[in-house]
Amino acid sequence: MHTDLVAALDIGGTKIAGALVDGRGRILVRAQRATPAREDGDTVMGAVEEVLAELRASALWSGATAVGIGSAGPVDASAGTVSPVNVPGWRAYPLVERVRAATGGLPVELIGDGVAITAAEHWQGAARGHDNALCMVVSTGVGGGLVLGGRLHPGPTGNAGHIGHISVDLDGDPCPCGARGCVERIASGPNIARRALEGGWRPGPDGDTSAAAVAAAARAGDPVALASFERAAQALAAGIAATATLVEIDIAVIGGGVGKAGEILFTPLRAALRNYATLSFVQRLTVAPAQTGTDAGLVGAAAAVLTRTPATTVAGVGG
Amino acid sequence: MHTDLVAALDIGGTKIAGALVDGRGRILVRAQRATPAREDGDTVMGAVEEVLAELRASALWSGATAVGIGSAGPVDASAGTVSPVNVPGWRAYPLVERVRAATGGLPVELIGDGVAITAAEHWQGAARGHDNALCMVVSTGVGGGLVLGGRLHPGPTGNAGHIGHISVDLDGDPCPCGARGCVERIASGPNIARRALEGGWRPGPDGDTSAAAVAAAARAGDPVALASFERAAQALAAGIAATATLVEIDIAVIGGGVGKAGEILFTPLRAALRNYATLSFVQRLTVAPAQTGTDAGLVGAAAAVLTRTPATTVAGVGG
Repeated sequence: MHTDLVAALDIGGTKIAGALVDGRGRILVRAQRATPAREDGDTVMGAVEEVLAELRASALWSGATAVGIGSAGPVDASAGTVSPVNVPGWRAYPLVERVRAATGGLPVELIGDGVAITAAEHWQGAARGHDNALCMVVSTGVGGGLVLGGRLHPGPTGNAGHIGHISVDLDGDPCPCGARGCVERIASGPNIARRALEGGWRPGPDGDTSAAAVAAAARAGDPVALASFERAAQALAAGIAATATLVEIDIAVIGGGVGKAGEILFTPLRAALRNYATLSFVQRLTVAPAQTGTDAGLVGAAAAVLTRTPATTVAGVGG
Repeated sequence: MHTDLVAALDIGGTKIAGALVDGRGRILVRAQRATPAREDGDTVMGAVEEVLAELRASALWSGATAVGIGSAGPVDASAGTVSPVNVPGWRAYPLVERVRAATGGLPVELIGDGVAITAAEHWQGAARGHDNALCMVVSTGVGGGLVLGGRLHPGPTGNAGHIGHISVDLDGDPCPCGARGCVERIASGPNIARRALEGGWRPGPDGDTSAAAVAAAARAGDPVALASFERAAQALAAGIAATATLVEIDIAVIGGGVGKAGEILFTPLRAALRNYATLSFVQRLTVAPAQTGTDAGLVGAAAAVLTRTPATTVAGVGG
């Protein structure tokens, strides 16, 4: 691990970031391009190849032993393909094969971006030392990932932990995913703002109708803004409690823009968790804000490679 | 595995069953006592010790290398204690230590009864060959367990997969657990019957108001009975879809009395799953009835021992 490096890619709808990362999670070389999200698939891949070419130009490249990719989802790690919602030119796009070709045949590991951020938080952030954790990004959307039994749990396709699209209100409002009452439909930044506006909250002279503006109003005591954050907290609590009841996590880490709202979010979230996490084995569950910063996607993509074990499937028992 | 046997215990509020089980899951010796559920803790333990004494009297006992216990929950595998809701004399009762003492110091593995049934279904039932599965018991209560990455996932305390108490209706009816809108509060047998009665369904001359009687009425076309099963199916679908979205299972196996209702349950369940399991990576999810019978608890307790791996926790990465 001392000399080996990992090439990491963090692919989103806005930018494509790349880095060479060492075994301690330090970023030694960086490259970045804007995502040509409205262009055809090969043009988007061209931007990825430019990032990789810049990394390969580094004298340190010879130490790179593998590539870790965290991509906007959905991803399919088993097929090696990605279909990011915000990059329409990529549908079942064979990203793993293309990146392998562009790096002279290095092994490539693909995970969803929520799983990547979870890997980063487990390695260096608020989930450090926790063997069973849920890490979430609450922002324009709501994503996440799981650590189970001390290990990242990406699931067979690399999408596990996708808490934004579990339904906590089975008769609730339709969600763009096709279901109803999803955590994201209630707790995402745009839905916090929408609910506040529908309740009569009005932005200040700057016209800022973001969730951050609603959070500022809530801090100033606006009851409609407070109620919108309380409702988001209730949905997050129901989803976090469901996760804990299903897989026995002991911490939920919350990052993303809404996660930065501080006590306006965390105080009602802790109160609501007491209402939904009721069974004895989930009562010690805690919540904490994320600690990793804007490099979490890159660091997490590297961590997914560094913690990879050869196989998670064992044969059944038998005589 | 050919000569080694496992002593299995299945501990419920009604009976305490014991067996010697071989590496193929065959039950070679049996013993059973009624659970003295209203008596003090030592009296209940006395019944367990009688079961174990009967097993020890067998000539095959010398082949027993370990004990597997599946117990009504909550259990705490990390502490080795059980607190079954229906056995008030046992609260944080040190069952593992007592069983170890009663068996001359054999290693003892404790899991919840939902996890035990999952182990049996994965070994010999409908989840066989599936590396990622949820198995449920839908009966007086709703329990369950998980197989992840080819392995039973009991969680640190042995309670993982407890799908009956995840909330799918965050503003819904209060559940005895303290939360609202839990899957069990909507989909258990007694709640199926309650909802039918509240809707105007009346039992036949035998006065049978069980969920099985509601299922019979539904099969005969009673719209209120059908609607009650459809609502239960909707709640189960939301819970199963949530589980799949969180941990990427590809099959949900349903046992217990309500699981035996057949197409009256499974037809609306499959329809509702299409509404809630919407993301690409969960769309191939299937549901199936359980295949193991009344010995599932014993076979599963044995399977949990036979499939046990020494450690699931790995050290973090580092330089």
